Amino acid sequence: MSLVRESGRLWIVGLGPGGPEWLTTQAQNALEQAQDIIGYAPYVARVPEREGQTRLASDNRVEADRAVEALQRAASGRKVAVVSSGDPGVFAMAAAVFEAIEAGDPKWRDLDVEVAPGISAMQAAAARIGAPLGHDFCAISLSDNLKPWELIAKRLEYAARGDFVIALYNPASRARPSRIHEAFSILRAHQAPRTPVIFARAVGRGDESIVISQLSDADPSIVDMSTLVIVGSSGTRLVTRGAAPPWVYTSRGAS
Amino acid sequence: MSLVRESGRLWIVGLGPGGPEWLTTQAQNALEQAQDIIGYAPYVARVPEREGQTRLASDNRVEADRAVEALQRAASGRKVAVVSSGDPGVFAMAAAVFEAIEAGDPKWRDLDVEVAPGISAMQAAAARIGAPLGHDFCAISLSDNLKPWELIAKRLEYAARGDFVIALYNPASRARPSRIHEAFSILRAHQAPRTPVIFARAVGRGDESIVISQLSDADPSIVDMSTLVIVGSSGTRLVTRGAAPPWVYTSRGAS
Repeated sequence: MSLVRESGRLWIVGLGPGGPEWLTTQAQNALEQAQDIIGYAPYVARVPEREGQTRLASDNRVEADRAVEALQRAASGRKVAVVSSGDPGVFAMAAAVFEAIEAGDPKWRDLDVEVAPGISAMQAAAARIGAPLGHDFCAISLSDNLKPWELIAKRLEYAARGDFVIALYNPASRARPSRIHEAFSILRAHQAPRTPVIFARAVGRGDESIVISQLSDADPSIVDMSTLVIVGSSGTRLVTRGAAPPWVYTSRGAS
Repeated sequence: MSLVRESGRLWIVGLGPGGPEWLTTQAQNALEQAQDIIGYAPYVARVPEREGQTRLASDNRVEADRAVEALQRAASGRKVAVVSSGDPGVFAMAAAVFEAIEAGDPKWRDLDVEVAPGISAMQAAAARIGAPLGHDFCAISLSDNLKPWELIAKRLEYAARGDFVIALYNPASRARPSRIHEAFSILRAHQAPRTPVIFARAVGRGDESIVISQLSDADPSIVDMSTLVIVGSSGTRLVTRGAAPPWVYTSRGAS
């Protein structure tokens, strides 16, 4: 044991979905202390540059490699921040890092790891238009890269039968653009035609756009990789406001 | 119309679940601009005092009255912040405010209202122990003040049958302490005995405590008003770490 042992650290940091207004103090502190910033390139680009800090930007599809890289660096004594958009604990890098710890070098289990949660995309989208997540809700990823479509379809069905508000992450699939239509077919079989539907794109960014529709005539083909979809429950209501878009909220009581 | 018309504003602000480390920049800005701070007394107490700012602390059970008070003040030209612990959009004040707007003075629909989302209790609890919300999950309030227990029981059943990770808000009921036991009975009928269960109490506060258990022998009678419960899915795993508590995460793939 050396008297001057450098001890590595790993932060898994949520940047929130868009601009800097959703960054927490914990996340800011982690980004200031980190020697290495690791993440998907557009997220790394959102971290203010600091002299002496190494920046490792990678492609979207290499979450597992990125987790291993971060763990190796922390194990070698570096102070490392893995950054995610939104909350790293919700469909993002935190699960990938703990998966890598479980499968990897047993010494990684002794690393000093801290998760800094962030505002997730569904929360930011909800805040823009009212309080659609104000009562019982589910969050489901439509990505079938790592799980079979049958499991996704089953979850959509039970979420709809349970009359939950439903937030859909990763609604767009380049390989299978029909998935979002299949998802809406399942929801339409169980939920009322007038159920409010929100397509929230690029919330917090310069090109933010939000479309409020209803289940019967919502066109899910408008989703892209930056879109988060919220489908209401029977308790979700619109509050009209003249020319302004309506507020959308989910009642706290029985629907 | 007067040239010096003061225009009121209403922010609905999330303080995050505990200490100041989870406050966002948007929330901080709102608290600094507000003339009136309105909320449940322990939450108002968490806002740093500022000269000239009025503080209206009320009881937990008067959400609707508090919403009306805030709207009246904003309509009279005041700059008002309603504060919630966690995220105001998740089982908190935002739905109460929009409900009051819908039912109240039509002029309230023209008010300048902004929701500042916050880190919700489930996100903070998850971050402390790993990434249990890393894949598809539901959030369910067990409070039957405003909805019948039958609806809660139905949602618990569908959430369990859909193999979602489940976050339980308001698990403790003074009036009906048996509710949490009934909830666990429903979950035990559908989920494996070894499913991880997390009781996270007062996360971010000085008296924070987290108990990691499994469904077969978890004792739900330890919950109180400050506890958030997370029950895993079949994809939720423990990563043991010698003497330290295990990490808990939910795999991104099929369980």
